[in-house]
Amino acid sequence: MTGPERDTPGGVPGVSGGVHPAWLPPSAMRAVGRRRVQVHGDGPLVATVRAEVARARADHGGDGDGPPDLVLALAPAQPPDGFTVSRAAGVTTVAAGDGAGLLYGLFHVARLGEAAFGAPFPPRVHRPAYERRMVQHWDNVDVHPVMGQVERGYAGGSLFWHDGALRADLSRAAAYARLLASVGVNAVSVNNVNVHATEALLLTDRLGDVVTLADVLRPYGIRVHLSVSFAAPARDLGTADPLDPRVTAWWALATDRVYEAIPDFGGYVVKADSEGQPGPFAYGRSHADGANALAAALAPHGGVVHWRAFVYNHRQDWRDRGTDRARAAYDHFAPLDGQFLDNVVLQVKHGPVDFQVREPVSPVIAAMPGTRVAVELQATQEYTGQQRHVCHLGPMWREVLGFAPWGADGPAVAGVADGLVAVSNAGDDPFWTGHPLAQANLYAFGRLTWDPHLDPVAVLDEWIDLTFAPDTTADPALLRGTLHAVMDDSWRTYERYTAPLGVGFMVRPGDHYGPDVDGYEYTPWGTYHFADRDGVGVDRSTATGTGFAGQYPPAWSRVYGSPAECPDELLLFFHHVPYGHVLHDGTTVIQHIYDTHFAGAQEAERMRQRWAQLPAGLVDPAVAGRVAERLDEQVRSAREWRDQINTYFHRKSGVPDAHGRRIH
Amino acid sequence: MTGPERDTPGGVPGVSGGVHPAWLPPSAMRAVGRRRVQVHGDGPLVATVRAEVARARADHGGDGDGPPDLVLALAPAQPPDGFTVSRAAGVTTVAAGDGAGLLYGLFHVARLGEAAFGAPFPPRVHRPAYERRMVQHWDNVDVHPVMGQVERGYAGGSLFWHDGALRADLSRAAAYARLLASVGVNAVSVNNVNVHATEALLLTDRLGDVVTLADVLRPYGIRVHLSVSFAAPARDLGTADPLDPRVTAWWALATDRVYEAIPDFGGYVVKADSEGQPGPFAYGRSHADGANALAAALAPHGGVVHWRAFVYNHRQDWRDRGTDRARAAYDHFAPLDGQFLDNVVLQVKHGPVDFQVREPVSPVIAAMPGTRVAVELQATQEYTGQQRHVCHLGPMWREVLGFAPWGADGPAVAGVADGLVAVSNAGDDPFWTGHPLAQANLYAFGRLTWDPHLDPVAVLDEWIDLTFAPDTTADPALLRGTLHAVMDDSWRTYERYTAPLGVGFMVRPGDHYGPDVDGYEYTPWGTYHFADRDGVGVDRSTATGTGFAGQYPPAWSRVYGSPAECPDELLLFFHHVPYGHVLHDGTTVIQHIYDTHFAGAQEAERMRQRWAQLPAGLVDPAVAGRVAERLDEQVRSAREWRDQINTYFHRKSGVPDAHGRRIH
Repeated sequence: MTGPERDTPGGVPGVSGGVHPAWLPPSAMRAVGRRRVQVHGDGPLVATVRAEVARARADHGGDGDGPPDLVLALAPAQPPDGFTVSRAAGVTTVAAGDGAGLLYGLFHVARLGEAAFGAPFPPRVHRPAYERRMVQHWDNVDVHPVMGQVERGYAGGSLFWHDGALRADLSRAAAYARLLASVGVNAVSVNNVNVHATEALLLTDRLGDVVTLADVLRPYGIRVHLSVSFAAPARDLGTADPLDPRVTAWWALATDRVYEAIPDFGGYVVKADSEGQPGPFAYGRSHADGANALAAALAPHGGVVHWRAFVYNHRQDWRDRGTDRARAAYDHFAPLDGQFLDNVVLQVKHGPVDFQVREPVSPVIAAMPGTRVAVELQATQEYTGQQRHVCHLGPMWREVLGFAPWGADGPAVAGVADGLVAVSNAGDDPFWTGHPLAQANLYAFGRLTWDPHLDPVAVLDEWIDLTFAPDTTADPALLRGTLHAVMDDSWRTYERYTAPLGVGFMVRPGDHYGPDVDGYEYTPWGTYHFADRDGVGVDRSTATGTGFAGQYPPAWSRVYGSPAECPDELLLFFHHVPYGHVLHDGTTVIQHIYDTHFAGAQEAERMRQRWAQLPAGLVDPAVAGRVAERLDEQVRSAREWRDQINTYFHRKSGVPDAHGRRIH
Repeated sequence: MTGPERDTPGGVPGVSGGVHPAWLPPSAMRAVGRRRVQVHGDGPLVATVRAEVARARADHGGDGDGPPDLVLALAPAQPPDGFTVSRAAGVTTVAAGDGAGLLYGLFHVARLGEAAFGAPFPPRVHRPAYERRMVQHWDNVDVHPVMGQVERGYAGGSLFWHDGALRADLSRAAAYARLLASVGVNAVSVNNVNVHATEALLLTDRLGDVVTLADVLRPYGIRVHLSVSFAAPARDLGTADPLDPRVTAWWALATDRVYEAIPDFGGYVVKADSEGQPGPFAYGRSHADGANALAAALAPHGGVVHWRAFVYNHRQDWRDRGTDRARAAYDHFAPLDGQFLDNVVLQVKHGPVDFQVREPVSPVIAAMPGTRVAVELQATQEYTGQQRHVCHLGPMWREVLGFAPWGADGPAVAGVADGLVAVSNAGDDPFWTGHPLAQANLYAFGRLTWDPHLDPVAVLDEWIDLTFAPDTTADPALLRGTLHAVMDDSWRTYERYTAPLGVGFMVRPGDHYGPDVDGYEYTPWGTYHFADRDGVGVDRSTATGTGFAGQYPPAWSRVYGSPAECPDELLLFFHHVPYGHVLHDGTTVIQHIYDTHFAGAQEAERMRQRWAQLPAGLVDPAVAGRVAERLDEQVRSAREWRDQINTYFHRKSGVPDAHGRRIH
């Protein structure tokens, strides 16, 4: 179940180096490569732009001398990382204030394709919504005995590390940087937030490894960040007390050394007092004390600390109904608002529990107006099918980013957040992400960091055009239609056949893949559904429950707190209701469970059928084969979910299915 | 969780070599060692007797020259392995037909202690009930990635193997042989029945390791057996078809080589077509074909094959109610009765499923009159507390051996069986068995192989006398009383707080330790309880169920088949009944569940309390401390079982506890 090679059964036939090009095959740069291009400016990222242009022209035989079709130029008065694109007099012009902006502008032109070279259009300014657009890798340097090389990784080994050492060949890491840059990502943390013994040494003894990675990622405008152990100073000092001057001096010295080696180092990522990781609580200090100690060391260099808000009691007694894990992040962090230094970024998981297929948006995001907050998303599909199931997450992320915590008149999460972070789903698998269609999640994440208002269907269209070049195939409409049919609604399909109505978990403990309805019910993890013969769900209301609903501003506090008003899809997250409770659509909870589970499994079958109907040749046979294999597994697994969930609730409730379908 | 060192936190203070002497401390041989002893006869085992006597006399300063108090002599007309003991004219005499009998006679005298040297008594003939009295080790040569060095081992590493190799220092193995011989065991299989790649080589490339072990065990009359892979010939021949003459020739040649190296080699142990192990089914052959192929190779040398009947479909669909794992061994083997060669021993687990704390006796034992059957017991406490809980198994085994399959007028299992086998609970733990009190299970097993009619309480008394020498302590009655109070009823206590009324399982998948009521409910393992809101249990009746009850002779088939007549403790093994079903003692099933779980956890607390009240000095402090630690864990775990089981059934049934106790 673990080990770096599990998802790498060999390279991709017919593809250079056996590695699939993801959304940057040569065809993706065809419109650029066919043109006469001029690049104006200097600097390392401008050099990267020139190299990209040269590569594209080599691939596509762009016209030789003559007046340019495309001009890419550094120019004053452009937003950081941004660019302005226009077309006039037969010339398309990209103007950027810095090399990164020019690179993003080039990839923007690639996405536009021939449309960039058609009718004239006036200058359009593009700028990223967030200064920091980050991917975090839960990669271990050593193979961890339980978690393997990549914690919660479903795409082979790490792109950076192999078996205790930095990879000798980092060409995949370089290609990965190019993919990330093409969607606007500009920061990568290169090791697991769970910092084990070997990984703790990256900050000190093995800093050279980080230097090498920074060198590989830098040409694509990506800064390296490092996950560090809060306890790191204790090895030398016997303490990591953040208020001890020796400790702050230790961090200052260690950080100075990092910046000496890597002047554009991004900063630290810290998981403290969380699931066994050390933290400030051990010294009776607050998380503000803890985060500020590291931030103070980083501030002189322009670095930031990403401090995770994922703090809860993972040794809860399941008998204790008073403790609610969902409350924990708010209870710990909201009182600290305003106490963090300006270069602390509080990194908050999008939901209050842990990346379930359906959770409300974390109330912490709206509770920290005096704190910089980054929203953490999980591209790696830990709880959403582990890259064996198609589960296109763009629509879920768009919902999260569009959620308005203060009600329709207030700002949305996208406007409140200071940054977006995703846990990467990429590894050394030949398709990068295990499931070839999971590439689209990494793509969508990048694009949303640039513009969180993008329509996920449009983003998927971009990805399809770049990846599959449908217009070069025999049947573009069929190819596009099939991909949309398989992917667009796949998140909701996955939701339908797994844990119902927002109640979450019901997965096998440990690996988190298949169903196990009571798997976490009597454990210390704080993830319960409380199903009994009469009803199911967690009462998190203020009136009668744990009070979690009261952590939201009034508009949502009221809605979530009321079983009548609570959105159906979150009903069991917020309320314990009888099986006969009638949902807004008129069905009972128990009938809804049966209906959605039959429907979800059937949709998985339809996805497989739809894919099988793709004529040979429309898609690279290696991709087609890998997707087909995984759809087989998805169908099998979806049936298993359907049958276990339905049987469990039928046995418990005794209510027969209104349509008389087979429940075991 | 795995690894050889988990239970070896250092040696036992004050004990030679840091290893506890188990039931053979010097005091155990005091009555012998104080006497003038003559040993008559020759041969290797007589030499062992002489060495034992010399050692005892050295320890206890036995009287010098003069007429003997004890004569041990080879003599004609004694049963194999047996002996006659008598006392007359101030001399105790042990007469045996062979060296093994003389050795057993010596240890018999040790057990008698001073009583052997008191009033005269007429000759008493002792002979073992079974020719072969066997302990099997599920020890791996290589550390297995999941199972560690010892599969289902709770007592540290293997006594034989360490990290891929035979141990260089086999002094523990020699001491172990002495312990086994002292209770009559005369056969040991030295590797896991799951034969992995390295272990498969013991038969051929690494036979030298087996030779060495045989040399270590031989002085105590113990023959070595080897677990082999049925597929072994396939490495050379590409097939293991038992009817292929090349295959039978391969086994003949391999076996000849084994006997050339180890003339007293015992034979093979085979787990075939079971849980992924290869077997005759792959070639369309029966298990008789398979077993006979190996038996034919062994027959010329006097060896036997232990062929395990533990064959079932471990990839069952949980939705399939028609398949019943309990039926499998009978269905596979009963039709083959009479087809096995005489040196095939069909090794049958005592229950039809898998070593649960309560199962009926396997119907296979009574179904094979034309086949030699050995009953397999599990001294290693896989499902009975893993040597963290006190669970004295003597009473359970006695019940199994006393069960009369044809009804009270017919023979009991003890009389039907041809041999007893136990999976060993010993390892390189300084106390041999992890929990010091678990030594008594190994002791009791050995004694039952000699005489299956022994009273378990009397056997425990023997063990207490040998191990703790209570008469040399300040308060013999308190020490004996405490040990009996903690151990006598411990099996039934464990039964009370775990899965109720014979339904079995409800353990955490994988490690099989703590509770997880639905842990196996939706898995392929065939171990289900079918609890729903109305009732619980498996209908194995002939009338309405799987028909398993019909595999017994009529007396029990009728009893087990009827919910009214079925013994309470097996009710849910044989029937699915409503929670309101009234047991023979007048309580309902649901109230029985609550009552026994509250009672069982309370009994665990009383055991701990009783142990804590032992005054310092009555027991070796290292033993006292280890037992106290484990009782703490037992109390914790028993409460967890109580609460999970009670909560599960309360949520499902909705029936309140009649006594209003706290259920979560």
